[in-house]
Amino acid sequence: MDEVEALVFDVFGTVVDWRSSVAAELQALGKEHGVSSDTDWVKFVNQWRMGYITNTRRIAEGGSGPLNVDILHKETLEGMLDSPEWSHVGRAWDAQVRESINLAWHRLNGWPDTVEGLQALKRLKIISTLSNGNVRLLVDMAKHAKLPWDMIFSTELFGTFKPSPKAYLSACHHLSLPPAKCAMVAAHIYDLRAAAAQGMRTIYVRRPNEDEEALSTMGGIVKSKADGGEFDIVVNSFLELAEILGKSK
Amino acid sequence: MDEVEALVFDVFGTVVDWRSSVAAELQALGKEHGVSSDTDWVKFVNQWRMGYITNTRRIAEGGSGPLNVDILHKETLEGMLDSPEWSHVGRAWDAQVRESINLAWHRLNGWPDTVEGLQALKRLKIISTLSNGNVRLLVDMAKHAKLPWDMIFSTELFGTFKPSPKAYLSACHHLSLPPAKCAMVAAHIYDLRAAAAQGMRTIYVRRPNEDEEALSTMGGIVKSKADGGEFDIVVNSFLELAEILGKSK
Repeated sequence: MDEVEALVFDVFGTVVDWRSSVAAELQALGKEHGVSSDTDWVKFVNQWRMGYITNTRRIAEGGSGPLNVDILHKETLEGMLDSPEWSHVGRAWDAQVRESINLAWHRLNGWPDTVEGLQALKRLKIISTLSNGNVRLLVDMAKHAKLPWDMIFSTELFGTFKPSPKAYLSACHHLSLPPAKCAMVAAHIYDLRAAAAQGMRTIYVRRPNEDEEALSTMGGIVKSKADGGEFDIVVNSFLELAEILGKSK
Repeated sequence: MDEVEALVFDVFGTVVDWRSSVAAELQALGKEHGVSSDTDWVKFVNQWRMGYITNTRRIAEGGSGPLNVDILHKETLEGMLDSPEWSHVGRAWDAQVRESINLAWHRLNGWPDTVEGLQALKRLKIISTLSNGNVRLLVDMAKHAKLPWDMIFSTELFGTFKPSPKAYLSACHHLSLPPAKCAMVAAHIYDLRAAAAQGMRTIYVRRPNEDEEALSTMGGIVKSKADGGEFDIVVNSFLELAEILGKSK
């Protein structure tokens, strides 16, 4: 890993805990507008997130649709609020409230190790995002959650979404580095496999309830190459990663 | 200016003092390699910079050439070292030395007010670059000079150079803001005029020996609209700008 000059981070789930951040905002807004306290807001946010995942992957494969995640989130939200399952929420929230809650994705909080971990990693390497989130979303989130990025790459800048190869290659190109000198950091195996296919190094970070694909296809057991697995490094936190990279330097 | 949510900064000359930073590196390297101490390194760096300006403007107008400033700087440098005027330097510097000095543009220092000024402005607005410098150059410079950007826009990301309209409009688009809510901050009238033509607000910062165009066409007297001039705000430093914007908030 000594050769690696830049760490390129997935954001949703890897750096920030979208589920609890958005669920907390939904719950507060539900209470404010008299939505039944039985409402399952974690289910709501999981469904919202699933709409995002389905659509970004479809568009990454060449399907049509917006390349801006604010717009994608809004379309998914409106569809949900029109559905029978969430119509009681839809009745309570007018256009202005919907605009406001859509921006909850700009106000996500880091995992407990995120800020301190990124600060330590920034002293060792270039640290950049590579996220499907749009630029403004990532800028607002960095200010909100105090994320000390050296660079913010949004796939919107490259006219695509991950896991399209173009997303990974564009980030390396603009860092003036061959892919072998860039490591992708993510909590999702699909993202790391797509990065590895372009020659990037891979760092898997375990995050709670984040990688359903690893759970369903590998029993949730993700291993490093040293342990017979497929990724260069596997860690439980950014602080653990900083310790490993600091030693190898 | 209350409506303005983002400050978009020109970098070379506005944020960093390229002339003295590069001249100091040239002089040290000249001494190390036995180049005559009579060599006029400020003239050398001015000529190098002029090659960059001529080429970026030509390419912004649709001419052919590289969109990466590292490559442009290198081409200009090689041309100079082949010329009779600088052949004594060319003879002293091999390929490796030329690669190394070309990266002096990644190691520029801020003006005395830069870091403190940007920190104050970051508390009030989104602060981003909009520079013709390539991404890696701007990332290295931010780490070197401790520039606390919220976002780094390089025109290389947009496939053009300033003063092409596309450069300004792309920055506003990715900030999810109409141009009227973005202010261009620059020490050069050509840059602010191009930004204003796209509807952006304009902030002129006076920097020593930086704006030859203002000197030759306006006697160097640049005024704000309130004083009968053409720009929204005219200041002598980023700290003065932070004071003005902090009050109007």
